[in-house]
Amino acid sequence: MIITVTLNAALDVTYRVSSLRPHTTHRVLDTAERPGGKGINVARVLAALGHRTVVTGFAGGPVGEELRRRLAEAPRASPAGRPVPLTDALVPIAGATRRTVGVVDDATGDTTMFNEPGPTVSTTEWAAFLGTYRELLASGEATAVALCGSLPRGLPVGAYADLVREARAAGVYVLLDTSGEPLRRGLAARPDLIKPNADELMALTGYSEPARAARVARRRGARAVAASLGDRGMLAVTDEGDWQAPPPGGRLAGNPAGAGDSAVAGLLSALVEGLPWPDRLARAVAVSAATVVAPAAGEYDRATYEKLRNRVEVTAATP
Amino acid sequence: MIITVTLNAALDVTYRVSSLRPHTTHRVLDTAERPGGKGINVARVLAALGHRTVVTGFAGGPVGEELRRRLAEAPRASPAGRPVPLTDALVPIAGATRRTVGVVDDATGDTTMFNEPGPTVSTTEWAAFLGTYRELLASGEATAVALCGSLPRGLPVGAYADLVREARAAGVYVLLDTSGEPLRRGLAARPDLIKPNADELMALTGYSEPARAARVARRRGARAVAASLGDRGMLAVTDEGDWQAPPPGGRLAGNPAGAGDSAVAGLLSALVEGLPWPDRLARAVAVSAATVVAPAAGEYDRATYEKLRNRVEVTAATP
Repeated sequence: MIITVTLNAALDVTYRVSSLRPHTTHRVLDTAERPGGKGINVARVLAALGHRTVVTGFAGGPVGEELRRRLAEAPRASPAGRPVPLTDALVPIAGATRRTVGVVDDATGDTTMFNEPGPTVSTTEWAAFLGTYRELLASGEATAVALCGSLPRGLPVGAYADLVREARAAGVYVLLDTSGEPLRRGLAARPDLIKPNADELMALTGYSEPARAARVARRRGARAVAASLGDRGMLAVTDEGDWQAPPPGGRLAGNPAGAGDSAVAGLLSALVEGLPWPDRLARAVAVSAATVVAPAAGEYDRATYEKLRNRVEVTAATP
Repeated sequence: MIITVTLNAALDVTYRVSSLRPHTTHRVLDTAERPGGKGINVARVLAALGHRTVVTGFAGGPVGEELRRRLAEAPRASPAGRPVPLTDALVPIAGATRRTVGVVDDATGDTTMFNEPGPTVSTTEWAAFLGTYRELLASGEATAVALCGSLPRGLPVGAYADLVREARAAGVYVLLDTSGEPLRRGLAARPDLIKPNADELMALTGYSEPARAARVARRRGARAVAASLGDRGMLAVTDEGDWQAPPPGGRLAGNPAGAGDSAVAGLLSALVEGLPWPDRLARAVAVSAATVVAPAAGEYDRATYEKLRNRVEVTAATP
C-alpha cells in the first residue's frame, strides 16, 4: 500500500463563468467540488492506476467533513482500469479545512484562483498526526510514502524533514514534493526522491539549468531527482543513471493543473511495481500528459494515457 | 411576529485579497461566511431591531446545513438593542443551497461577486413550502410578511403572486421585494407594499422618473411603493400621501450591499410598531445608511443608526 500525506488538504471548487470582469457580479454557470491538495490528487491517480492507497494529513470543520464524504465515494469504475477505494486516515483538527476556488473564464479558458488560508494546526494535533503516520509506516504494508504540498500554519518548518526521517527509519521509500524552506529542510533528511518543477529546482539550488540543479540537489541530500519541466517533459537524475523524456507529440494544449501530482503517482506506482527508472519516467510523463489534456482539471484521461504510455521516448541524459 | 421568505437562500462567503488580478493565483487574506439571501438579511436586521422573526424558504445540502447552523447562533447582544434569536422554519430540499463568493479587493475596496446557480426546487418541495407558509400565516401571531429576492429554478414565475394572495387572504400585511417578471406577476396579486430600487422600478414601468413610475406601479396593483433611490434616499407613494427622505449628511461612503434589505426591515419594524408613514420612511433611511457605512457588508452599524435615526428629514413629496 502507498501512503500519501496532505498536511494542507483542500476542497477544490471550480466555478465556470462566461467572462471574468473584475468588480462586477457573475452568474456562475456551473460548479464542481472535489477533494484536493497535492497528496490527495496523487492518491486519486494512484487508486485509478489500481494501487491501494491510504490518505493521511488533516481535516476539520464542515469543509473537512465534506472532503471526507467525497473521498469515501468510490472512484468511478472503468472498463480499462482497476480503480480501488481510497482509505481515509486523515487526522481530525479543530480548525477548518480550506477551500480553493478556481474561476474558469469560458471566453479565454484561463483560470483565476482564490486559495483560502486554511487552518492552524496545534502541537497536540501534530503529535496525533505523527502517531497515525508511525502506525501506517509500521503496519508492514507500506511500500512507499509521498509527502506533498505546503505546510499549514502552526507546523514547524522542519515538519517534512521529520517525516522523511521516520519513513527512512521504517525502511519505507519516501518521495518529497514541496517547495521553499520546507523542501530545503526536508532535503537534509535524505529523501529517496524529490519531484520539483523547474522553478522549485532553481529556487532550491540557484541554478536554472535543470540537470545541473538536479545534481546539486542530489549532493544536498536527495537520493534521486525527477524534475517536471512542463513542455520539456521530465528529467531524472539518479544513482543508476540520468534519463530524460519529452511529452509524446510535443507541446500539449490543456490545463496543467495537477500534472505534477499525476507525475508523482506515475513514478510511485511504477516503483512499487518493480519497474526500472526509464519505465517509471515513461509512466510519469504519460499520465502527466493525460492530465493536461483531460477536460476536468486534475483528472487524467485514461484513454489518452493508454494511447501515450507506450509512445514516450526515454533517452539517457548526458551528464 | 414577522415572517421573511427567502426562496433562494445563500451562504454568503467573503474573501479579502490584496489585489484582484484575473488569471493569477490569489492568497485569500481572510474569509467570512454568513447566512444570506435578501429575506435572511431582512430577518437579521429585524431581530437586531428587537422583532421576533421567522425565517422560511428552502435549505438543502451541506451548505444548507451550514446556513442553518449559523442562523441558530444567537445574534450578538448589544447594550443599546434587544436582539432576539431568529426562528428557523426553512423547508428542507434535496438540492444544495447555493453559495455566493464576494472577492473584496483591498487595494480598491471594490467587490467582485460570483453567485452559484443554486438548487432546482421540485413541485413536491414547493407544495411542502406552501404548507409551512400557510401554517405560519394562520398561527395568529404573524403581523407582516416580507417576500424577498429571486426565485430558484423549478418554481413557477407566478410563485410570489400566489404567496401575496395567501397573505392577503390571511389578513397579513405583505411586502414584495423582487424584480423582473416575478415582480410584475406579484404586483397583480395586490401586495401592500413593494420596495423596488430605481432600476427595478424603471424595468417594471418603463418610466425613469421615480415618482411617476411609483404611481404607475400603484395603478398596476401595489397598495404602496417605497422606492430606494441610493444617494437620493427613499420615496414613498401611498394612499395616505407621498413622502421623500434623503440620507442624512448627504452621500455616504461605504458598501451599499444589503442597504435595500435593511430598508425593508426598517419599513416593516416601524409598521408593526404602529408608526405612521413618515416615521417608517425615516427608520428605513437611517438603518439603510447605517448599513452602507458598516465595515461588514450587509450588517448595520448600531451606533450610526442611533445617531442618524432622529436626523432624517422626511418631507411631503409633490405629486
